Amino acid sequence: MTGLFLTFEGPEGAGKSTQLSRLTAQLAQRGVPCTVTREPGGTPLGTRVREVLLDPALSIDPLPEFLLYSASRAQLVANVIRPALARGEVVVCDRYADSTLAYQGAGRALPDHLLRQITQAATGGLSPALTVLLDLDPAVGLARAARRGHPDRLEQADLAFHARVRAGFLALAGAEPARFLVLDATQPEDALAEAIWAAVAPLVGAVEGGWSTESLPL
Amino acid sequence: MTGLFLTFEGPEGAGKSTQLSRLTAQLAQRGVPCTVTREPGGTPLGTRVREVLLDPALSIDPLPEFLLYSASRAQLVANVIRPALARGEVVVCDRYADSTLAYQGAGRALPDHLLRQITQAATGGLSPALTVLLDLDPAVGLARAARRGHPDRLEQADLAFHARVRAGFLALAGAEPARFLVLDATQPEDALAEAIWAAVAPLVGAVEGGWSTESLPL
Repeated sequence: MTGLFLTFEGPEGAGKSTQLSRLTAQLAQRGVPCTVTREPGGTPLGTRVREVLLDPALSIDPLPEFLLYSASRAQLVANVIRPALARGEVVVCDRYADSTLAYQGAGRALPDHLLRQITQAATGGLSPALTVLLDLDPAVGLARAARRGHPDRLEQADLAFHARVRAGFLALAGAEPARFLVLDATQPEDALAEAIWAAVAPLVGAVEGGWSTESLPL
Repeated sequence: MTGLFLTFEGPEGAGKSTQLSRLTAQLAQRGVPCTVTREPGGTPLGTRVREVLLDPALSIDPLPEFLLYSASRAQLVANVIRPALARGEVVVCDRYADSTLAYQGAGRALPDHLLRQITQAATGGLSPALTVLLDLDPAVGLARAARRGHPDRLEQADLAFHARVRAGFLALAGAEPARFLVLDATQPEDALAEAIWAAVAPLVGAVEGGWSTESLPL
């Protein structure tokens, strides 16, 4: 595989979508071929699974919830992410396996070894080269998300749940500091975009058959 | 747990629905409290997952397919089957974990240990006391199913796939002869119903707080 796999993680309201758009705009400006996708979703199957997962009317236990995310992920990795990487592209994914470990593990208390085993199967062990974690106090994130409209099923979960999720993300980052870029999501949008580009640019430059990025201004 | 868990397995067109209805009618006649359910489905989540799995327009890889079945199963076991068994009921389920091992294992060649690990997690190890396997030549079964209308996504799979599934079911039955009742599905409907009742009645009688069945005519 010759491409570059990047993921964005963090709670709702942390600005993942904004920063993801800014990054992909940077990549596009530089002519870097890029595939942007998200979890759950990203494939016809994933879109259907996403509708089920985010339906506020539906009661879903933690284990089936995790299995649904994993189904969407397995289809996405096999049909979108791996083919794009094989074409040498940069793949940017909004949420990936770390969300599972944080939300279903730290948040919903499913056993870590079970999550990791099934995630290993669903991804074939594919891990991002860089994960941008936009860290945010859950109270702030939920207030931001609420301003955007009706909360979905996950956003309705209580604050203690989201505090566990945040701690889960930070623990994952602590265990793999070389993979994670942890940023304080309350920083100004431009500062975040600069920090992210500073981390991504060298990786893009290093990709085999890579695209020169050093000589271009941010 | 004080109830009795029974499952029906076999290909489309083998007469599972018919025999399941006859059995539950027998149980109802005798005043035996009974919960009838099916996979995938049986819960609001399972119904949604079933729609996704059987949609002929959707492309689903073997692994996500399996994970979707497992999600439906986990929700069904926790929310329907275990509570009914705890109430002392007879639970009759149209398809269960053996279908996964036959269709996704023997049929789609997913690794057996992966299927069993995740199935163990999804079911918490809950296994039926008796599994009725209606065995049928796939060519006959598919012809029967086709007469009923438009084939769904699974019925469209080719004959070699269904031959592997049949062999998978028979291998499972061979490995657990005490749990399986294997019947030739080309037998007359009445003969099948009698054979099934002959196997079920003693189990129903043996259930704790059980319902006497011996003195009643078939």
